[in-house]
Amino acid sequence: MKLRIIVTLKPGVLDPQGKAIHKALDGLGFAGVEDVRQGKLIELDVADDTDDATIDAMCRKLLANTVIENYRVERA
Amino acid sequence: MKLRIIVTLKPGVLDPQGKAIHKALDGLGFAGVEDVRQGKLIELDVADDTDDATIDAMCRKLLANTVIENYRVERA
Repeated sequence: MKLRIIVTLKPGVLDPQGKAIHKALDGLGFAGVEDVRQGKLIELDVADDTDDATIDAMCRKLLANTVIENYRVERA
Repeated sequence: MKLRIIVTLKPGVLDPQGKAIHKALDGLGFAGVEDVRQGKLIELDVADDTDDATIDAMCRKLLANTVIENYRVERA
């Protein structure tokens, strides 16, 4: 079973990486970019019988820092 | 207009970050994980009249290294 875990910074958390990308896009002449946020994408291939609670535990224990990050699980 | 740019390593390109996550999941006792790949997610908020060619240029010039990475644009 293929999963996509999408980890994004919570709103309000500073995102220096996103800011750097924004500045670089401006510097390259791309106008009209209003905001950039960088997140992480983790593609997991897990056994088909893996239940939602286990996937959730993986995210909470390792993949996302829930103090500053949100995560979302998508089935591919 | 909100866009999600998903940047993933091309198949065959070594992914040490993914390997590290895989080992860490094993170490935490999560069995049944077959493969882990780490990618990047860039959320862009651009002007509504930004055309596809411009978005593509942003990806090719800055956001993705097309030698080793694939990218996909999703409209949120």
